[in-house]
Amino acid sequence: MARPLVGVLGGGQLGRMLGLAGAPLGLEFRFLDPTAEAPGGSVGALQVASLDDEAAAAALAEGCEVVTYEWEGVPVATARAAGARAPVRPGLEPLGVAQDRLAEKTTLAHLDVRVAPFAPVDDAAALSGAVDHIGLPAVLKTRRGGYDGKGQRVLRSADDLDGAWEALGGVPLLLERLVAFERELSLLAVRGLDGETACYPLVETEHEDGILRVTRAPAPRVTAARQADAETIAHRLLDELEYVGVLAVELFEHDGGLLANELAPRVHNSGHWTIEGADTSQFENHLRAVLGWPLGSTAARGHSAMVNAVGALPDTAAVLRVPAAHLHDYGKAPRPGRKVGHITVTAETAETRDDRLTALRSIVEGWT
Amino acid sequence: MARPLVGVLGGGQLGRMLGLAGAPLGLEFRFLDPTAEAPGGSVGALQVASLDDEAAAAALAEGCEVVTYEWEGVPVATARAAGARAPVRPGLEPLGVAQDRLAEKTTLAHLDVRVAPFAPVDDAAALSGAVDHIGLPAVLKTRRGGYDGKGQRVLRSADDLDGAWEALGGVPLLLERLVAFERELSLLAVRGLDGETACYPLVETEHEDGILRVTRAPAPRVTAARQADAETIAHRLLDELEYVGVLAVELFEHDGGLLANELAPRVHNSGHWTIEGADTSQFENHLRAVLGWPLGSTAARGHSAMVNAVGALPDTAAVLRVPAAHLHDYGKAPRPGRKVGHITVTAETAETRDDRLTALRSIVEGWT
Repeated sequence: MARPLVGVLGGGQLGRMLGLAGAPLGLEFRFLDPTAEAPGGSVGALQVASLDDEAAAAALAEGCEVVTYEWEGVPVATARAAGARAPVRPGLEPLGVAQDRLAEKTTLAHLDVRVAPFAPVDDAAALSGAVDHIGLPAVLKTRRGGYDGKGQRVLRSADDLDGAWEALGGVPLLLERLVAFERELSLLAVRGLDGETACYPLVETEHEDGILRVTRAPAPRVTAARQADAETIAHRLLDELEYVGVLAVELFEHDGGLLANELAPRVHNSGHWTIEGADTSQFENHLRAVLGWPLGSTAARGHSAMVNAVGALPDTAAVLRVPAAHLHDYGKAPRPGRKVGHITVTAETAETRDDRLTALRSIVEGWT
Repeated sequence: MARPLVGVLGGGQLGRMLGLAGAPLGLEFRFLDPTAEAPGGSVGALQVASLDDEAAAAALAEGCEVVTYEWEGVPVATARAAGARAPVRPGLEPLGVAQDRLAEKTTLAHLDVRVAPFAPVDDAAALSGAVDHIGLPAVLKTRRGGYDGKGQRVLRSADDLDGAWEALGGVPLLLERLVAFERELSLLAVRGLDGETACYPLVETEHEDGILRVTRAPAPRVTAARQADAETIAHRLLDELEYVGVLAVELFEHDGGLLANELAPRVHNSGHWTIEGADTSQFENHLRAVLGWPLGSTAARGHSAMVNAVGALPDTAAVLRVPAAHLHDYGKAPRPGRKVGHITVTAETAETRDDRLTALRSIVEGWT
């Protein structure tokens, strides 16, 4: 029996979790990834080629019902090559916008979404003018290619400007005011092929060294008005980009309001809790959307928390002794700074969730 | 990186769901199944050979951390051959007991578990004596090999005895009093390698033509005393058989008490609801048990119901429009009477669950 085939550009853990969510839906998967050990390979066919390889992308798309991507760094030309053979969703425009921090901020500002003051820094000479305009402290970021805190540099005083442009590789940069935010939140939204949209509850995220460590879902102390504000941001983006699939919006809570920090046009680490913690996981909802199927409920089931395993996985038995802990091992070799898995705890109440999270953190942090 | 390898004798949907539950735990799978299209093949390596093939079973077990089975019809000799290379869990004894309805009933009776009156019928001549002893109505069943209502015949009057033995293939049979039960319940229990045990809440099952159609979890109207009675039955069995893994006990509610009807020494269709409806799925708990890992919580999360898709799958979009519906497509070709998938709905209250179940049944039953 022919089953719908989904092509995925990129074969990392996000691809793998798409595959695991899609198997019960009767889907088959084909991944394009440059490494033969890519986690996606255990849940579908893996085509090993560079993500710059347009011919490989076209071959991947051949016979696919739809092609999606699990990394926003996939070159637009690669996605376009796939698009000649099968629909590519969320689409090329979200990919282009998310790949360029300037396009991202410009799009947000154009949609009247509050963002930190920003200015392009195209060369070393432009830096001091940008600092005059934005003020300090500020963050200097590469316009392209940064993730998990890489490609960023904080400027606190005029002294920090020296060599900053060169240190980030001599590529086009963006300067952003450093916002003294109260906390970080993330919103996952999904838009179907027919324009139907749904949002998960806001979650609270904690980063360390630029890497997401912990997500609490739903985020504590979120009013209905705050949730509505976040959803307004998401809806503007989804409609503007004629988006199909899951979109993540990273937000700062600041001065009694929300600032949009970053977009990810894909399933997102801050949504991993949805596997056990929501009626429908972000992975299933992304697949439903890109396949033109009805979206699933985004309601939370009780309270959850997710902890990333960075560098190495903690001892399996120790993790599984934490009540209602769910281990997700991505099948990746350990390496410092690498996300190799995550663990989600669920509970009926926020208090129990927090107790379980404390137990879990002590295991995960004691291990890495 | 070497990941623990789990060998599974049988590669049907139960094997596939073990594989899907085991992937996030970092496990890899190898299945032995006579058909090249076995569902397990999409989540692990598939070794195509007869389940009578002892050499194939030994080869399967080579390098495995543990071997388990997903069908109680696996010949004991095959399991023994695998056992020479890796531990086989739940073990050989549960397999032997579950394969022979007489051994099953005798074991239950020996443990003081209430069962319907029964008598062996080894040949045609023994039938009328057994009927005199047990009374009518009664069910005549093959001692071996029956499942999903196959290999059974109801005897309501003396006339029904003519040719009954021959009709069931001229093999050793068991005669059982037909119990006018109020309803059917099922208990899933799990025992770890260290003897730790846990039970899921009792569920209510509905069969049609001997095939499970619907499970409601937790079962409505179950007192703590009734749950405790069921758990006592399970504990006696688990300890008697030195069982490791998930055990299913099918029960009749009759005359204000419980009667044990059938055992399954494996993950079971009446436990599919646990994937979304319990803290830990039966598949994950079976794997935790056979690998010697701590067991997970067996508590229900709200209320669930499962509907089997028998013969063919209903329309995907129609199913997914039912709130909190979770589709499980086994990847099997449609065929009358064949279980090709199941759908679980979850809800916070029993009332909402029942509404969703009603919506789901109308789709599933309208389809098949």
